[in-house]
Amino acid sequence: MVIIMNPEATRENISEVIKTIENVGLEAKIMEGAQQKIVGVIGDKTKLGSVAIGALAGVDNIVSISKSYKLASREFHPQSTVVDVAGVKIGDGNPVVMAGPCAVESRELLLEAAEIVKEGGAQFLRGGAYKPRTSPYSFQGLEVEGLKYLAEAREKTGLKVVTEVTTVEGIKPVAEYADLIQIGARNMQNFGLLKEIGKCGKPVLLKRGLSATIEEWLNAAEYIMNEGNPDVILCERGIRTYETYTRNTLDLSAVAAVKHLSHLPIIVDPSHGTGKWRMIKPMAFAAIAAGADGLITEVHQNPAKALSDGSQSLTKERYFDMMNGIKKLSRFMREENLNPIIEG
Amino acid sequence: MVIIMNPEATRENISEVIKTIENVGLEAKIMEGAQQKIVGVIGDKTKLGSVAIGALAGVDNIVSISKSYKLASREFHPQSTVVDVAGVKIGDGNPVVMAGPCAVESRELLLEAAEIVKEGGAQFLRGGAYKPRTSPYSFQGLEVEGLKYLAEAREKTGLKVVTEVTTVEGIKPVAEYADLIQIGARNMQNFGLLKEIGKCGKPVLLKRGLSATIEEWLNAAEYIMNEGNPDVILCERGIRTYETYTRNTLDLSAVAAVKHLSHLPIIVDPSHGTGKWRMIKPMAFAAIAAGADGLITEVHQNPAKALSDGSQSLTKERYFDMMNGIKKLSRFMREENLNPIIEG
Amino acid sequence: MVIIMNPEATRENISEVIKTIENVGLEAKIMEGAQQKIVGVIGDKTKLGSVAIGALAGVDNIVSISKSYKLASREFHPQSTVVDVAGVKIGDGNPVVMAGPCAVESRELLLEAAEIVKEGGAQFLRGGAYKPRTSPYSFQGLEVEGLKYLAEAREKTGLKVVTEVTTVEGIKPVAEYADLIQIGARNMQNFGLLKEIGKCGKPVLLKRGLSATIEEWLNAAEYIMNEGNPDVILCERGIRTYETYTRNTLDLSAVAAVKHLSHLPIIVDPSHGTGKWRMIKPMAFAAIAAGADGLITEVHQNPAKALSDGSQSLTKERYFDMMNGIKKLSRFMREENLNPIIEG
Amino acid sequence: MVIIMNPEATRENISEVIKTIENVGLEAKIMEGAQQKIVGVIGDKTKLGSVAIGALAGVDNIVSISKSYKLASREFHPQSTVVDVAGVKIGDGNPVVMAGPCAVESRELLLEAAEIVKEGGAQFLRGGAYKPRTSPYSFQGLEVEGLKYLAEAREKTGLKVVTEVTTVEGIKPVAEYADLIQIGARNMQNFGLLKEIGKCGKPVLLKRGLSATIEEWLNAAEYIMNEGNPDVILCERGIRTYETYTRNTLDLSAVAAVKHLSHLPIIVDPSHGTGKWRMIKPMAFAAIAAGADGLITEVHQNPAKALSDGSQSLTKERYFDMMNGIKKLSRFMREENLNPIIEG
Repeated sequence: MVIIMNPEATRENISEVIKTIENVGLEAKIMEGAQQKIVGVIGDKTKLGSVAIGALAGVDNIVSISKSYKLASREFHPQSTVVDVAGVKIGDGNPVVMAGPCAVESRELLLEAAEIVKEGGAQFLRGGAYKPRTSPYSFQGLEVEGLKYLAEAREKTGLKVVTEVTTVEGIKPVAEYADLIQIGARNMQNFGLLKEIGKCGKPVLLKRGLSATIEEWLNAAEYIMNEGNPDVILCERGIRTYETYTRNTLDLSAVAAVKHLSHLPIIVDPSHGTGKWRMIKPMAFAAIAAGADGLITEVHQNPAKALSDGSQSLTKERYFDMMNGIKKLSRFMREENLNPIIEG
Repeated sequence: MVIIMNPEATRENISEVIKTIENVGLEAKIMEGAQQKIVGVIGDKTKLGSVAIGALAGVDNIVSISKSYKLASREFHPQSTVVDVAGVKIGDGNPVVMAGPCAVESRELLLEAAEIVKEGGAQFLRGGAYKPRTSPYSFQGLEVEGLKYLAEAREKTGLKVVTEVTTVEGIKPVAEYADLIQIGARNMQNFGLLKEIGKCGKPVLLKRGLSATIEEWLNAAEYIMNEGNPDVILCERGIRTYETYTRNTLDLSAVAAVKHLSHLPIIVDPSHGTGKWRMIKPMAFAAIAAGADGLITEVHQNPAKALSDGSQSLTKERYFDMMNGIKKLSRFMREENLNPIIEG
Repeated sequence: MVIIMNPEATRENISEVIKTIENVGLEAKIMEGAQQKIVGVIGDKTKLGSVAIGALAGVDNIVSISKSYKLASREFHPQSTVVDVAGVKIGDGNPVVMAGPCAVESRELLLEAAEIVKEGGAQFLRGGAYKPRTSPYSFQGLEVEGLKYLAEAREKTGLKVVTEVTTVEGIKPVAEYADLIQIGARNMQNFGLLKEIGKCGKPVLLKRGLSATIEEWLNAAEYIMNEGNPDVILCERGIRTYETYTRNTLDLSAVAAVKHLSHLPIIVDPSHGTGKWRMIKPMAFAAIAAGADGLITEVHQNPAKALSDGSQSLTKERYFDMMNGIKKLSRFMREENLNPIIEG
Repeated sequence: MVIIMNPEATRENISEVIKTIENVGLEAKIMEGAQQKIVGVIGDKTKLGSVAIGALAGVDNIVSISKSYKLASREFHPQSTVVDVAGVKIGDGNPVVMAGPCAVESRELLLEAAEIVKEGGAQFLRGGAYKPRTSPYSFQGLEVEGLKYLAEAREKTGLKVVTEVTTVEGIKPVAEYADLIQIGARNMQNFGLLKEIGKCGKPVLLKRGLSATIEEWLNAAEYIMNEGNPDVILCERGIRTYETYTRNTLDLSAVAAVKHLSHLPIIVDPSHGTGKWRMIKPMAFAAIAAGADGLITEVHQNPAKALSDGSQSLTKERYFDMMNGIKKLSRFMREENLNPIIEG
C-alpha cells in the first residue's frame, strides 16, 4: 500500500500516518521529494482491517498494491488448476463446451435439446431451472421440476449438467441434481450465497458480474474457496459498457488476465456476451484462440419459440457448424503448440 | 414493441412475425418504406412472455417501448407516494437525513455517534450490522449484536433506525430491530431477497445497483411491490463509470428521472456516491436542490479509525456544517416555492 | 511514481529498474516486504520522458502519483482564478448564465432568441455557427454568417457571445466575433486545435470530453495554458456511461473535483448533460448548489422547430422560470455564506 | 423512426406530430393501444434535418431505426470491399499485419525496427511521426523528419508505411510519405480533419474513438467517404470502460458487428486495446479467429527504452512468436474454410 500525502501535509500529519501503520504491526517507509511525500506500507495489509488511513489529516490518496485474494491467486499457487467435474476435466488444455437452452421450458423440449447438444459434441448440458429475471412478470423457471428434467437428460445422454442457483435455499436441490453449480452475474457479489456455495462440495461456475472488475471477480472466487471449496471455474460473460449494439461487451482480454493473475480455469459465454446469435461463432472461435478453457453457449431447436434469450441462441445447424469449427481449431492449436498464454 | 425487419426480409418472414404476435393475442401493424419495414405490436407485451421474436428469420432488431414495471410507475399511479417510516414521512417535500457510521463497530462508538447524529438534526441513524464486503477478509459486521446496539441507540435518541439486510435469513432479525430495511447496491438484483423483503411488512430503502439502469432499478422496486409491500424508497448512490477520481459517479439526474417515471420517493447517498468526504457537502446541497426527498450520509466521530469507509465519512464538525446548510437550503426552497421537479 | 515488482522479480531486475531511473537523474527508493517489492521514484517525473519502465523485466505495474499538469493545478496556484470575459467575471462567486439556441439557424430567430436570453437575465448568448455533427448529413452550421448574426445580437442586447470553434482555420473568424471561444467535447483532445487556441488571445470555454477523465481534462487545459493563454473556463457537460435514459450522465461531482484539483472556474451544461428539457431546471439548481461558477443551457423560442437538439432546449417560459430560481438560489447561498466547496 | 407518445398525449398532440412529419414530405402511421400510442415515420429520415420532434408536446421518446450512414453501410453495398494499399490488399481474406514502434524515435532505431518487422513477415511498418499525447510535456513526435525516416525504411525493406495524421496541416506531408493514413482514436470525431482526409486521395485507417459507438464510428467513415474517398479501413483499438486492469477493453465483437453492418475491412490493435504486452498474442490470435482482416501492433527492439507505450510493445522474439502463430492460424482457417463471419 502506498499513501500519497498532500503537498501541504505537515511533519505531524506524516508522523500520525506512520504511527497508525506501526500500531497494527506494519512497517512504514517514507519517500520525500520536492513536491510530494509518499509513505509505503510493508507487510500483510489485512492487519489494517479497514482502518481508514484516507481520513487522516494530510492524506491525499491511497494506492493499493497487493492483491486482497490469496487462494485464487497465481502468486500463491503457481500451477494451473484443473477442475474435475464428474470426470470431465476443465483447464487441462482441452476446451470443453456447455450448451443448451437458456431456460428449461418443458421435459420434451429439454430432452430433445439434450440430444442435439450431445450430437454436436459438447460435454455439458446447460439450462436454467431458476431464472433471475429483470422483471417479476417474466418467466421465472420450472425450479425443482426443471432440475429433474436435467437429471433425466443426463441419464439419457451422458452429458454433465450445469445449472444456476439463485438463492441459498436453492443450493440443496441444485447440488443434488447438478454436476456443476452456476452462480450468475447478478449474484457474483451475493456474498451470503457465495459462502454457502463454498460449503456445498460441488464444483462452481462463477460468472463475472455485470460490471465487476477482474479483481472483484477473483475476490468473489476467494469467498467460495475460503469456505473450503477449491473447485471454481470462472466464466467471462460480457461486461456493461456504453455500447448498445451488443447486449454486453465481451471482454476476451479477461481470459489472458485471469490466466496471469489466477490459477483457476476460465470459460467464455458468447451468447450473453453479445446477445446476438450471429456473433456467437466468431466470439467462440476468438475465445478458443485466446486460450479459454471452454465455452458455454445457448442452443435451442426453435429459438423463436424460446421462453428466454432466443435471439442469442443457436439453431441446431448453427450449433453443429460452430462445434465443427471449435473442434478443428482447438485440435490444430494443440497439435501446433500454439499456446496464446504466456504463463508467469 | 417495434420490430425492425432486415431490408432483405421476405413477405414470408413478415407473415411469420405477425402470426407469432397474433398467436398470443396481440395486434400487429406493419409500416413499410422503401428501405425498411417495421412491425408494431399493440397490447399487453407481457402476453409475449419471452417468445423470442428476435430469433425469427428476417428480424433485425427489436425496440421495447412500454415499461415492464407497473406498480412503481407514475403512469399507473400519478400521485407521488409519501412513505411513513415509524412516523417520519419521506416524500412529502421535507427532506429527511439519515446519518451514522458505515458499520456498527461497538456499542460505545455507536451510542456516541447516535448522539452526534441526533444533535446535528438528522431523523435516522444508519449503521451496518451486516456488511457486504468485496474481500472475505474484511470486517463483515457485528450482526445481531450490532442490531441490538442500533435499537438501544434509538431508545436513547429517538432516532429511527435504517440498516442493511444481505441475506434472506437476515430479514427476520433486521425487520425486528430496524424501522427501515436497506437493500444494498450489490443486492439490487438479488431477486430472491427482493421477493422475501416484499413480504416482511417493513418499509424498504432500495439502493441503485452499481451499474443498474433506472429501468432495472424500478423493476427491482416492482419485485418488492409485487409481493404486497408498497413502501419502497429509492436511493441513488453513484454508478460505475470509467472515471477513477471518484469511487462512483453520483448520478443526480436520477432524481429527476425517478420523479418523472415513478411515484416513489428518492434519496441520495453522497458518501458512497463520491467516496471522498470533501465532496459530501457539495453533493448533498446539489441533491436537495435537485429535488431529492432526503440524504443518507456517513458520519464518524473519528473517521481515521473507522473499520469501513472512513475516507468518505464526515467528522462531527463537518456533519454539523453540512446539516446547517441543508436545513437552510431546504427551508428556503420550500418558502420560495422553488420546486425543481416538473411533474407529469 | 511507484513501481510494483513481480513477486518473482530478481535482484538483477530491481537493479536494472533503479539504474534506469537514476540514469535520467531521478532518485529511487526500494521498499521490500515478504510478498512484494516496490520502487519509489522521487523527483520530476517528466525527466523520464516516456521511458517505458513497465517493459523492464520483473515489473508488474506502475502507479503514477504526481499530476502531469502544472499550470492548471491548484497545487502550483492555490488562489482561485477569476476569468474576465469582456467585463463579465467568471469564478468570482457570482454564477453567470450562458443561454441561447444550440445552433444559429437564421438572423431573425437568433435576434429574437437573444432578446429572450437577455430578458431572462443571462450574461452570455450562446449559439453554434460551426456544428460538429455525428452524421455528415446533419445541419453543419451557418459558419461566418452565423458569427455575424451573433455579433449583431451582441450589439442589440449587450450580451457577451460564446460560440464553438471546430477547426484551426475557424479560430481567426471565431476569435474576431466571439467574446469566449468554446472547445466542444469531441475536440477536447484535438491537441493541434488546443495549441492554436492557446495562442489566440481570447478566453476559452473547454468542455469535458465525452469520456474524458478529470485528469485528461485538466491536461487539455494545460495544453492551452502552456501556449500562454491563462483564461480557461472548464465546462462539465455529462459523460458517457451505460445509462441510456439520459443522453449523458451529468457528473456534478466534477465541480467539487475541479475546485479541489485546479484553480480554474467551472460551469455546467445541463442541456447536453441530460438531453431532456425536463431535467434542465433540477440539474441547474443542483449545479449552483454544488458550487459551479455558472451554467450554459439551450433556450429556443420553438424547440420543436430547432434544427439541432430541440428536445433539450427550454422554451421561453421554462427558461424564465429556471432563471428565477437560479437567481434566488445563488443570492441566498451568497447571503447565507453557504459555500459548498472546501478549499485546500 | 418511431415516436412514442406520452400516455396522456392528446389527439391534438398527435395531430401536431403528424403534421410536422408530413410537412417535410414524410409519411406517418399511427399505432394505438390501450396504454400507448406510437407514430411511425416512413421515408428518408434525413428530410427531417434536425427538426426536434422530441420537443413537441406529448412526445415521450424517439427511437431511431434507420442508419444515418449510407456509403459505409452493407445495406447499400452488399459486397465486401477490398482496399488496395500500394499493392497490398486488405479485406480479401488474407489478414495483413502492421507492426513497428509506437513513435518514430530516431533514424537508426526505426531502420533497425523495420528490418525486424520485415523479417517477422508483416506487410506494413507503423510508427508515429505526429503523436497526440495527453500531456503537453510528453514527447510529441519527430514530425516531417520522422516521415522521411519511414519513407527510407520503406525503401530498404519494401514494407508499406502507415502513420498517423493529427491536423489538417499534417495531411499534405503525411499523404506524401505514407501509403496508408491513420486517424487516431482521439480524432475520430474531428470532423474537419475527416472531411479533409476525404479529399486527400490516399487510403485511410480509421481508429475507433475511445468511447465511440459502432454507429458513430461508421458515421465517421461516412464523413470520409462522403468527400469521395471510398478506401476506408476500420481499426478496433479498445474502448473505455470501468475496468482498470487493462488500458482499454478490446471489443472484439466489433469485428463481427462491422462485418454485418458495413462492407469495409476491419483490423484490430491488441497493443492499445490492452496496454499490456502479455496480452498481445492472445488477443491477436483471437482477432484473427474472429475474422479480422488484419492486425496493427507495436514492436520495439528495446521496449524499456521506448519513448512511448513501451509496456505494450513486443520484443523481437515475442513478435516473431506471435507472427508464427498468426500465420499458421490464418492459413489453417483459410484451408479449412473456417469462416467465422455470417454474411447477410
